[in-house]
Amino acid sequence: MSPSTEKLLADFKASKTSALARVVSIVENRRPESDEILAALHQKVGHARRIGITGPPGAGKSTITTLVARRYREAGLSVGIVCVDPTSPFTGGALLGDRVRMEQVALDDNVFIRSMATRGSLGGLAATTREIADVFDAFGFDRVIIETVGVGQSELDIARTADTTVVVLVPESGDSIQTLKAGVMEAADIFVVNKSDRPGADRLRNDVELMLGLRRGVGYGSMPAHHGVDLKRAMNPARVAREAAKDANADAWTPPVLRAVAAKDEGIDQLVQSLDKHFDYLEKSGALLERRRQRLVERVIDAVDRRMRSRLWQGGDGEANGWIRSRIPDLEAGVTTPYSVADELLAAHGHLVTRVDD
Amino acid sequence: MSPSTEKLLADFKASKTSALARVVSIVENRRPESDEILAALHQKVGHARRIGITGPPGAGKSTITTLVARRYREAGLSVGIVCVDPTSPFTGGALLGDRVRMEQVALDDNVFIRSMATRGSLGGLAATTREIADVFDAFGFDRVIIETVGVGQSELDIARTADTTVVVLVPESGDSIQTLKAGVMEAADIFVVNKSDRPGADRLRNDVELMLGLRRGVGYGSMPAHHGVDLKRAMNPARVAREAAKDANADAWTPPVLRAVAAKDEGIDQLVQSLDKHFDYLEKSGALLERRRQRLVERVIDAVDRRMRSRLWQGGDGEANGWIRSRIPDLEAGVTTPYSVADELLAAHGHLVTRVDD
Repeated sequence: MSPSTEKLLADFKASKTSALARVVSIVENRRPESDEILAALHQKVGHARRIGITGPPGAGKSTITTLVARRYREAGLSVGIVCVDPTSPFTGGALLGDRVRMEQVALDDNVFIRSMATRGSLGGLAATTREIADVFDAFGFDRVIIETVGVGQSELDIARTADTTVVVLVPESGDSIQTLKAGVMEAADIFVVNKSDRPGADRLRNDVELMLGLRRGVGYGSMPAHHGVDLKRAMNPARVAREAAKDANADAWTPPVLRAVAAKDEGIDQLVQSLDKHFDYLEKSGALLERRRQRLVERVIDAVDRRMRSRLWQGGDGEANGWIRSRIPDLEAGVTTPYSVADELLAAHGHLVTRVDD
Repeated sequence: MSPSTEKLLADFKASKTSALARVVSIVENRRPESDEILAALHQKVGHARRIGITGPPGAGKSTITTLVARRYREAGLSVGIVCVDPTSPFTGGALLGDRVRMEQVALDDNVFIRSMATRGSLGGLAATTREIADVFDAFGFDRVIIETVGVGQSELDIARTADTTVVVLVPESGDSIQTLKAGVMEAADIFVVNKSDRPGADRLRNDVELMLGLRRGVGYGSMPAHHGVDLKRAMNPARVAREAAKDANADAWTPPVLRAVAAKDEGIDQLVQSLDKHFDYLEKSGALLERRRQRLVERVIDAVDRRMRSRLWQGGDGEANGWIRSRIPDLEAGVTTPYSVADELLAAHGHLVTRVDD
C-alpha cells in the first residue's frame, strides 16, 4: 500500500468527509487502489441499515428519500445517500429540481449524498453501488439509502442490493399494476403508493394487495421461471436465496402497501416505522444474516469477474489481444468462427486468469 | 448439432421467416444452441449495411426509422430492424404509438422488425444486438437498422456497433448542445436535426456544426480522455479504432448536419443519400474493412467473457460456488476479505476457464 493510500485510509478512519469523498471516487472510477482500500475497510462493514428506494420516473422517489433522511436526522442518526442515475448522454439537467431539494438535506454535516452517473454499461453498476454502500457503512453512517433515479430492470436489481427494498408507485404510473413487470412484486419489501390523494390511488393499493395475496396464495415455488437464463440465476445468488427465503417464510413478512403524499409530507412517519419493523423482522428471522452473507458472496463473484477480465485482456503483455488479431485473416476468410477462436483463446491463454497481479 | 437445430438452420437458409424469428429468439435469450447457430451462420455475415439510429426520447427516431425503411423498400431492398428498448419494469405501454406506426412497414414481407426488451442488465445488450444484426445479415437483408428507444450511454454504445451511426436531435432536447455528453459528438457519422420547423432548430444546427468544427480544429488526439478507465478502452477496441481512424482521416468525413421534419416526411431523402455517401466513404477509405474487423474482435471478446463466466461458475460441478460458501465464516469474521478470497479462488479454480465445454 502506498503512503498516500495509507494517509487516505487514516483520514477516512478519522471521519474526515474529504477522505470519504475521495474513497468514493476511487471506488466509483475503479482506480487501481480500489480493491486494497475496500479490503482494508472490510472489517468495518456491517453496521448500517441499507434501504433501496426505486419506482417509475415521477413517482416522487427523491422527495421520499429526502424526507426519510430528514426523519433519521431528527432521530440523531447519520445518513449516507447514493443516487444512481443512469444519465442520458443526450440530456443533462432534467433532475435539477430533485438535486436542489436534496441540497437542503445535504447542508447538514451528518448527511452525505453521492450521485453516481453511469458512464458506461449498467452491467457493473449494481456491483459498484454495493461497494459504495460498503464505504458509507464503513465510514459509520447509521443508514444508507440507495435511490435509483432511472428506469429499467437494472435499477430494480440495484435497489435489491439493500436490506429493505421500497417500491414507490403512483396512480398515474399505469392503468393498472398489470404493467408491473415480473420481478417488481417479488423485489418489494414495502410498497408506497405516493400521491395517494389522486384518483386511482385506492384502486392501485387494492390491486397491489390483491396481487400480493395471489402471489402468496399460489406460492412462489410454482411461479413460472421468468428470471432469465440459468447463468443469470447462478450469478445472482441473492435473488435465488431471497426467493427461497420467501418460500420458507411465506407468512413471516407481508409487504405493507402504504399511502403517502410526499409533497405534503404525509405518510413518511408510517414508512419510517415500516422500515424499522422490516429490519426487526430481518434480524429476528435470520434473513438479515442470510442477506449479508449473500452480499459477501456477490462481492467475491464481482471481484472474480473483474479480475478474470483484467488479467486475461491486460495481463501477459497483451498476448490475448495479440492472439485475436493474428486470427483475423482466418475469421475474415470464414475458415474459423469467433466462437471457435474464443475456445482456442481460452485453451491457449486462459491460464492468465490464475496469475496473481503484480 | 442436434437434428432439430440442423432443421432450423436448413429452414433459415431456405429464407423461412419463421426460422429467422426462432433463431433471433435463441440468440436473444442465449439458449445453449446459440453459439453453434451463430458459428454456422458466420460465413454468411458481411453483406448487409448496418445503420444505427439513436438520440434522446421524443426525437422522432421511430418515425425516421420507419421512413428510411420505406425508402429502402421502394428501392427494392430488404430491411431488418432491431429496436432496442430498455423496458422499464414499472411501465409497459408507453411506446405503443411507435409500434403501431412500425406495423405499417412490417406488413411488407421484406421487412422484419424485432423489438428487444432488456431483461437484465444492459451490459450484454450491445453484444446481443451485434449478434442479432449478424443473424439479419446472414438471412440476407440488404439493410439492418438498429434503433435504440431508450436513453443512456449504453444505447449510444449499441448504435455505434453499426457501420453508420445517425444521431437524431430536436430543438427541445436541450437549451443547447452543451447538454450533449462527451461521446455523442464522436459517435455520430450523420446528425439529423428533426422537427426543424420549430424555433431553435437553426441555432441547434449551428451549434452542432460549430462544435464539429471546433473538435476537428483541435484534433481528436488532443482531447482529454473521457472514456473511462483503461480496461474499458481495452475492452472497446472499436471505439479506439474509430477514434484513431478519425485522427488519421480528419478531413475525410465531416458529419453532415441535416434538417428534417419526419412527421411531414421532409428531409428523409437527404438522409438516405447521406447514408449512401457515408457507406461509399467507408468502403473507399478502408474504414469499412477496419470496422468489420473490429466487430469480429469484439465478438471474440464477448464470447470469451461469456465462456469464462459460465465455465467458472457452472463448470466443475459448481466447485467455485461451493468454495466461496466454505470461505463465508472467515469473511464474516473479518479474517479475510472478498478481494483475497477472489484471488484465492482464481488460483485454485481458475483453470476451469481453459476447459472445453461438454
